[in-house]
Amino acid sequence: MQTSLKIAVVGSGLVGSLLAIYLKRAGHTVHVYDRSPDIRKIQFSGRSINLAMSDRGWRALDEVGLGDAIRPLAIPMDKRAIHVGQALNYQYYGKEGESIYSISRGLLNRKMVDLAEEEGVEFFFETRVWDVDMPNATLQTGETEKGAWSDLKYDKVFGADGAFSRVRHRMQRQSMFNYSQEFLNMGYKELNIPANADGTHKLDKNSFHIWPKQAFMLIAMPNTDGSFTCTLFMPFEGENSFDSLKDKDTLKDFFAEHFPSTLDVIPNLVEDFFKNPTSTLVTMKCYPWTFEDKVALIGDACHAIVPFYGHGMNAGFEDITILNQMIQQYGDDWTTIFKEYEKSRKPNADAIAELSYRNFMEMSSKTADDKFHLQKKIEKHFSEKYPDKWLPLYSRVTFSFRPYSEALALGDRQKAIMDEVMKMEDIEHIWDSEAVNQKILTLLQQ
Amino acid sequence: MQTSLKIAVVGSGLVGSLLAIYLKRAGHTVHVYDRSPDIRKIQFSGRSINLAMSDRGWRALDEVGLGDAIRPLAIPMDKRAIHVGQALNYQYYGKEGESIYSISRGLLNRKMVDLAEEEGVEFFFETRVWDVDMPNATLQTGETEKGAWSDLKYDKVFGADGAFSRVRHRMQRQSMFNYSQEFLNMGYKELNIPANADGTHKLDKNSFHIWPKQAFMLIAMPNTDGSFTCTLFMPFEGENSFDSLKDKDTLKDFFAEHFPSTLDVIPNLVEDFFKNPTSTLVTMKCYPWTFEDKVALIGDACHAIVPFYGHGMNAGFEDITILNQMIQQYGDDWTTIFKEYEKSRKPNADAIAELSYRNFMEMSSKTADDKFHLQKKIEKHFSEKYPDKWLPLYSRVTFSFRPYSEALALGDRQKAIMDEVMKMEDIEHIWDSEAVNQKILTLLQQ
Repeated sequence: MQTSLKIAVVGSGLVGSLLAIYLKRAGHTVHVYDRSPDIRKIQFSGRSINLAMSDRGWRALDEVGLGDAIRPLAIPMDKRAIHVGQALNYQYYGKEGESIYSISRGLLNRKMVDLAEEEGVEFFFETRVWDVDMPNATLQTGETEKGAWSDLKYDKVFGADGAFSRVRHRMQRQSMFNYSQEFLNMGYKELNIPANADGTHKLDKNSFHIWPKQAFMLIAMPNTDGSFTCTLFMPFEGENSFDSLKDKDTLKDFFAEHFPSTLDVIPNLVEDFFKNPTSTLVTMKCYPWTFEDKVALIGDACHAIVPFYGHGMNAGFEDITILNQMIQQYGDDWTTIFKEYEKSRKPNADAIAELSYRNFMEMSSKTADDKFHLQKKIEKHFSEKYPDKWLPLYSRVTFSFRPYSEALALGDRQKAIMDEVMKMEDIEHIWDSEAVNQKILTLLQQ
Repeated sequence: MQTSLKIAVVGSGLVGSLLAIYLKRAGHTVHVYDRSPDIRKIQFSGRSINLAMSDRGWRALDEVGLGDAIRPLAIPMDKRAIHVGQALNYQYYGKEGESIYSISRGLLNRKMVDLAEEEGVEFFFETRVWDVDMPNATLQTGETEKGAWSDLKYDKVFGADGAFSRVRHRMQRQSMFNYSQEFLNMGYKELNIPANADGTHKLDKNSFHIWPKQAFMLIAMPNTDGSFTCTLFMPFEGENSFDSLKDKDTLKDFFAEHFPSTLDVIPNLVEDFFKNPTSTLVTMKCYPWTFEDKVALIGDACHAIVPFYGHGMNAGFEDITILNQMIQQYGDDWTTIFKEYEKSRKPNADAIAELSYRNFMEMSSKTADDKFHLQKKIEKHFSEKYPDKWLPLYSRVTFSFRPYSEALALGDRQKAIMDEVMKMEDIEHIWDSEAVNQKILTLLQQ
């Protein structure tokens, strides 16, 4: 049993709320601070991409018995639905029964705050943390940055305050702090496919829908109310960019040309497009993540990634799983807990950042490519016959608990092998032949 | 002729002072702000590495007629002097007459401030710029960060305030600002080889001295007073680290074992080692470098690099050369001046960052390697015979005005060619043969 501590968590998002529950369960006093109003009392739509909860996320919830409270919010998606012109085809994500789960970020966050409060976590909303006195684990809060500040002393401080973390800003001012933030030349905008009048979904609800257009794409993920949250990813500038869609008619023509199958299902296109903000996409990396035994960063605050693998929340929740393992192992030795936590997580955070960055290409281009479909079929065919020899990259990332860094490394190896296989003569016709299996087996042994 | 403007330069270092002179010459009112005291009134030694001024640096000075005022401060170094045990050998940097120039950073900076004042630039020392209102080109200064600030309104603001630039901090808070800082696991410490009693140098004064030890190294560069400024580069932690040299005897034993030839020439080793700070080494990259037609970063403020190519100041001075070219070309159109300046310089800043990072390996390991010497001899031999076909990488970086990005790309190509050449049978004996020349010519055509 650990000594009971007074712990502050900065940030009441998904990771902050779940971390607070874990810490409360461990017997600590837990206060959560957020600069924003209570998410249960405000409208939250307009700039969010739906979440795709997968195995790592569910594990973190189930380990504190909360999975069943969340499952009613989630819709399983076992495949991609690829829209090309008016045509539609499906690509299954994994084996039978394997799905990722669409959840509205706002709904999930409200539920998480409810659950945390039920556990006895205290929330302080609309409270701005301007700075942290790290050696003393003390938050400095106040109305304005230049006004008077109050000191709030804790035993530990966790920064779960997202990609633009204030806690991390303090760490950044230390010497030897490595840091990078890199924005894509691409933004995103939320759109909406409403439910049918009878509350059913307008598109197959158990699919992750993609309209791949190479340099840009539209996606749609189902909600429990029958609607879909859509996200348009597109460059800010140039041909086919947010910049180029300045008026109603241009916008309508653009959708008619590039996404003809959406015309009937996105009735509020014009209104939503010009009302909703265009958001940026950033990859943020840093190190170290902790300060002595006093302060630790977690989730987006230490590893913000682009959304193309759907693993931002899953990676943040896995931080909690690993941190909890360290707490179990090292008891009151928080210096070691923090050191081992950051050492274990950093290479995996870097790996999922890289995988996420690369996955835009897969979603926006390769999903529309016949060769890519064939390659996926070959991988699946081989994997079913030799499950211990081949776990496809997507499955290793999404339907396993293997480290992201391992997935990245093995994924590169698999890619090199499949590049060879795809060069085999007449591969379109012999793809499920024994010759192909033997070729892969040989290449695996090299 | 440009419209006369009121311009603020933040930072009175080498780049800030020289930029101020350029801007004053162009007819503007120029105010330079620095948080530090006037460098002419304080002691400045203890944490600096001597500068190695090369062609790019001299060009920026000569273009405003200041080269001759600086030359008396500089000592030419036409070669590396490599110390291995008690042995010593020389490697010439370029062709006959080509040298880099050792200058004390402090002496040069004092002189530059003097020269700028003579031109009519006004300096405001011990004045802290806390923030910049970028759309209004207004500096916000005050005694303390949380106290009252005064607004100082200008037409343009230049941030020449170094790797930890306050002006850049403001830019960093904008969306879409790419930024990275990465520290080496290695630090450095200044040491000193005093002059002989008669004022002469204890080692060859026209050499850049290196004691290469693979994971660490000592260097020494001459001063005009007969002394050498030495710099010890070494990991912070582990075997042979700053961390491992905690007491006098360990330090002395370490130098006796690894740098035996320095024993007689560094009399104040113990005192200096424990008195002088251990400094860090950071590579900082960012983009964009400018804000509208109002604010521009220059020098280390937008591209801090590690010192192993001796190009930090040279690259910063070249920023001024290029900025000045844009000013000549675009007159009063500062939006275009700033855009073209950052577009032209960014790839070159990235290239010299990469070259500098790689050059630690060359200095600390390869300079002690026979194969490397042989390779340099072959390159030189070929380059003398075919000067239009082969300019060695070091010469392209240091004795030419070709873009750094070109040097990096061609350097990689040359390396691939030399890797092939070094595999030739009996290369040690045939290195100056026609067969080797022909091999290089053939490889160059591929």
